[in-house]
Amino acid sequence: MQLKRSKFEINLNPIQRGGILTKEAREALIEFADGYSVCDFCPGRLDLIEKPDIKKFVHEELPEFLGCDLARTTNGAREAMFAVMNSLKVAEKNKSQIVLADGNAHYSSYIAAERAGLDIEIVENSGYPEYKIDVENFEEKIDLNKPVLVLLTYPDGNYGNFPNVKKLSKICKNKGIPLLLNCAYSMGRLEIKLNKLGVDFLIGSGHKSMAASGPIGVLGFNKEWEKIILRKSRYFPNKEIEMLGCSSRGPSIITLIASFPIVRERIKYWNKEVEKARYFSGEMEKLGLKQLGEKPHNHDLMFFEAKPIYEISKKHKKRGYFLYHELKKRGIGGIKPGLTKNFKISTYQLTKEEIDRVVKAFGEIVK
Amino acid sequence: MQLKRSKFEINLNPIQRGGILTKEAREALIEFADGYSVCDFCPGRLDLIEKPDIKKFVHEELPEFLGCDLARTTNGAREAMFAVMNSLKVAEKNKSQIVLADGNAHYSSYIAAERAGLDIEIVENSGYPEYKIDVENFEEKIDLNKPVLVLLTYPDGNYGNFPNVKKLSKICKNKGIPLLLNCAYSMGRLEIKLNKLGVDFLIGSGHKSMAASGPIGVLGFNKEWEKIILRKSRYFPNKEIEMLGCSSRGPSIITLIASFPIVRERIKYWNKEVEKARYFSGEMEKLGLKQLGEKPHNHDLMFFEAKPIYEISKKHKKRGYFLYHELKKRGIGGIKPGLTKNFKISTYQLTKEEIDRVVKAFGEIVK
Repeated sequence: MQLKRSKFEINLNPIQRGGILTKEAREALIEFADGYSVCDFCPGRLDLIEKPDIKKFVHEELPEFLGCDLARTTNGAREAMFAVMNSLKVAEKNKSQIVLADGNAHYSSYIAAERAGLDIEIVENSGYPEYKIDVENFEEKIDLNKPVLVLLTYPDGNYGNFPNVKKLSKICKNKGIPLLLNCAYSMGRLEIKLNKLGVDFLIGSGHKSMAASGPIGVLGFNKEWEKIILRKSRYFPNKEIEMLGCSSRGPSIITLIASFPIVRERIKYWNKEVEKARYFSGEMEKLGLKQLGEKPHNHDLMFFEAKPIYEISKKHKKRGYFLYHELKKRGIGGIKPGLTKNFKISTYQLTKEEIDRVVKAFGEIVK
Repeated sequence: MQLKRSKFEINLNPIQRGGILTKEAREALIEFADGYSVCDFCPGRLDLIEKPDIKKFVHEELPEFLGCDLARTTNGAREAMFAVMNSLKVAEKNKSQIVLADGNAHYSSYIAAERAGLDIEIVENSGYPEYKIDVENFEEKIDLNKPVLVLLTYPDGNYGNFPNVKKLSKICKNKGIPLLLNCAYSMGRLEIKLNKLGVDFLIGSGHKSMAASGPIGVLGFNKEWEKIILRKSRYFPNKEIEMLGCSSRGPSIITLIASFPIVRERIKYWNKEVEKARYFSGEMEKLGLKQLGEKPHNHDLMFFEAKPIYEISKKHKKRGYFLYHELKKRGIGGIKPGLTKNFKISTYQLTKEEIDRVVKAFGEIVK
């Protein structure tokens, strides 16, 4: 069956901008396209394969990149969150069955907890217009709930806000509660080091921020958690239970590995990405749109409240769909068809010229 | 990073023969290579995307193909087994915590049960040389263990044996125990219909037998299980807990869909594959090797006991590695380097000429 993608010259979808493959990943994908093709020389477990060198990547390069002792790849960031929660549920079965998360947590954080049979309690954000997480509010809720895990989203996928993780990690250390940091929108975009941040678990997403085709996630942690997270099968002593033996087999891992040298390099230029985002935010506000979330903004993912565009949509014959079509005409995509009142945009890895083209398009549309 | 695969003209590895991509899948893979590229027009859940038409595939074509009401794709066959086990653990928490499986079950069946916090009991196979599963032996063990689930592997990945599933499904129906059929080596190779076989859950593997790059699995079942397997999040009422919202996003599903019309066609010629396998088995036995497992054989996956080759390895300067190197010289791969005494071979989708080339190679090596 022939399957074609409607491509846009400029795609603004925040979930997609960090997952565009590098040339190297595209070549590796074609080379290792067939099912199980990374398993030609498997010694019994995916992360131990040396040809291609998955072993070096998982056991040396990833931990070094993340500033932690151990790393594994999973079938996605949500699957990595689930692996941690499911492990803690088993290991801490006499403790409370509650995950305490920030109010900006991705929906899959809730569902991972539900799948593991855990309840979830929330530390609310500050509401309109910044929706910030004040990590000091965790303290009381930790005392109240005695959670098995604290989860912080860094940044969240709605507003691109960065809460104060170092302060929270101190609180969690004092209380003796492990802290999981969901870095699906940061690992692969900026430097994320477990030991510097003081957290227990780092979660990343290959297809969201590490130039991999996916689905693939990354999980980093220190040795103190090894026996819990990487507990072995009682029937097959070489196999790790939470990985179901092997996790991200195939093209998912090969694209992650192939892009990795470029990803490792690109995080050095994160300040340029923040500059571009702030410039874009400023230009959009000149058009009468309002950027919600932290200001000045610290991430390429931006949430806009677009009253002028919403007003147009009310009178337009295409209604809410007019924005999608007007942008499409100009080679721009990534905002969900139908949305006008609020939408998210990412400028990650767009050039200055591309950003100006987007601003110009919105300018024409607003007029 | 440039990553190259050492390719063989003929690859005999049973885990790989059914996962070789079709031309269509290879094109789709390139088209949808970037992370999240199938999600351009997502209405909120992977299986509901209509462009590309994942919705039709998951909600119409797969159930029709599998002769059941409902289907989902997962991150792999093992992940599908885990989803069923984890669901049953929640739904049947007052019942026994035991999965009763056949003695030829894949290791990931054990680990899926362990991950779900279930114990596993085994119905042993008949031992050397056929390693058959007599499904009548399940009856007593069901009475003894009152399992929450019975699991049968159809065929298993060691010997390629097909146990009598219809007989077992009658036993399970009588006892009121659900039956899961692991078809990782059959779905996509031969006709597998849930309603004809009388089972409760069908599990398949895209990368093992459905010409997909993977990792991707398939889960089929009837409506009576919908509320248990597809139970929804209490926080996000549209999201299915066991799928963690969305499962096999990206290239995994696009290659499965692209290959599907060819897979649907190729299962009609399964008898030719069995004929080829039997021919190959016969020729190998003429060389002094012994095919273990069912005879006459009913699957392309064959286990050989290779005494003549083992004898050579004892005297050869390369020891056990000589077989790998001798085959490699002849453009043949897929037997793990170091093995000589016992190994598995699949003839799936090899031409008669290729099979004769393999037989000739073994003939030369044995001499």
